[in-house]
Amino acid sequence: MSSETNHKAITKTVVTPAQLLDHWQGHRRLTRKTIEAFPEEKLLNHSIGGMRPFAIMIQELLAIAGPGIEGLVTDKWQDYNEDLNLNSKKDLLKAWDTLTDKINNYWSKIPLEDFQKEILAFGLYEGTVQSTILYFIDNEIHHRGQAYVYLRSLGIEPPMFWDKN
Amino acid sequence: MSSETNHKAITKTVVTPAQLLDHWQGHRRLTRKTIEAFPEEKLLNHSIGGMRPFAIMIQELLAIAGPGIEGLVTDKWQDYNEDLNLNSKKDLLKAWDTLTDKINNYWSKIPLEDFQKEILAFGLYEGTVQSTILYFIDNEIHHRGQAYVYLRSLGIEPPMFWDKN
Repeated sequence: MSSETNHKAITKTVVTPAQLLDHWQGHRRLTRKTIEAFPEEKLLNHSIGGMRPFAIMIQELLAIAGPGIEGLVTDKWQDYNEDLNLNSKKDLLKAWDTLTDKINNYWSKIPLEDFQKEILAFGLYEGTVQSTILYFIDNEIHHRGQAYVYLRSLGIEPPMFWDKN
Repeated sequence: MSSETNHKAITKTVVTPAQLLDHWQGHRRLTRKTIEAFPEEKLLNHSIGGMRPFAIMIQELLAIAGPGIEGLVTDKWQDYNEDLNLNSKKDLLKAWDTLTDKINNYWSKIPLEDFQKEILAFGLYEGTVQSTILYFIDNEIHHRGQAYVYLRSLGIEPPMFWDKN
């Protein structure tokens, strides 16, 4: 699709569902690179100021987005459970990639009119479908930013922040 | 406005301009609290792994969002310049608050159809108005997440991540 056609097709809206999905998956691609940048032992154990190692933060992100995207589509919410027992870099990346496909599949089942629907995420958190998705993305950016400090403290160069390919 | 009325008024769109503005300003309120949580000397000088002190990151955020919102509305872009010479917590907070009003004022001048307009931010960065605004927000969340690690490393509790009031 040419840029001109694309532009014509999506005028008069802030952001389309496809753009928001690509925004999210772009961030998830960058987070995946950030996981890869850690030596496994540091991924599982490195900490600053009593904070959680990045491997534990990643399990939080998986525990939010996995049941999260399912809940947003089906309105059936599991209890929040971040105890995923993923104890290696390989298993974390595998779970990350499985969730990539799950998000894409569920996303196609969200009708445009549902983004403003009021929900109670995980049975606890008031919002709309759109505000909840933005929260999931923001929380991921927040923890990945923390992982950048972990990497720098280890003398490791993090991935470029703008590289979401 | 009742929740029902509000819901009816904004069906069939992912996010409205007013919602995106509130999303941005909510993050800016949280970042303001994060600036406030630092003792001044640590705000100006504390660093981990050779990274910039948070006061310098804040000047980056100001240098992006200030000329940024103006450029998005006027399509006139200044050269990017983050050398703002703000050397105290008081001056940083004052500049932060001035920009809050500036963003609100310029925001009202963005017509709905402009969010998908293709632009070259700061004369350099390809995108649309919406993708550029999302980048500004993401970059702020990223650096604020880093500031949370700085605070924890100093034994200081950061503001609650979800408290954007």
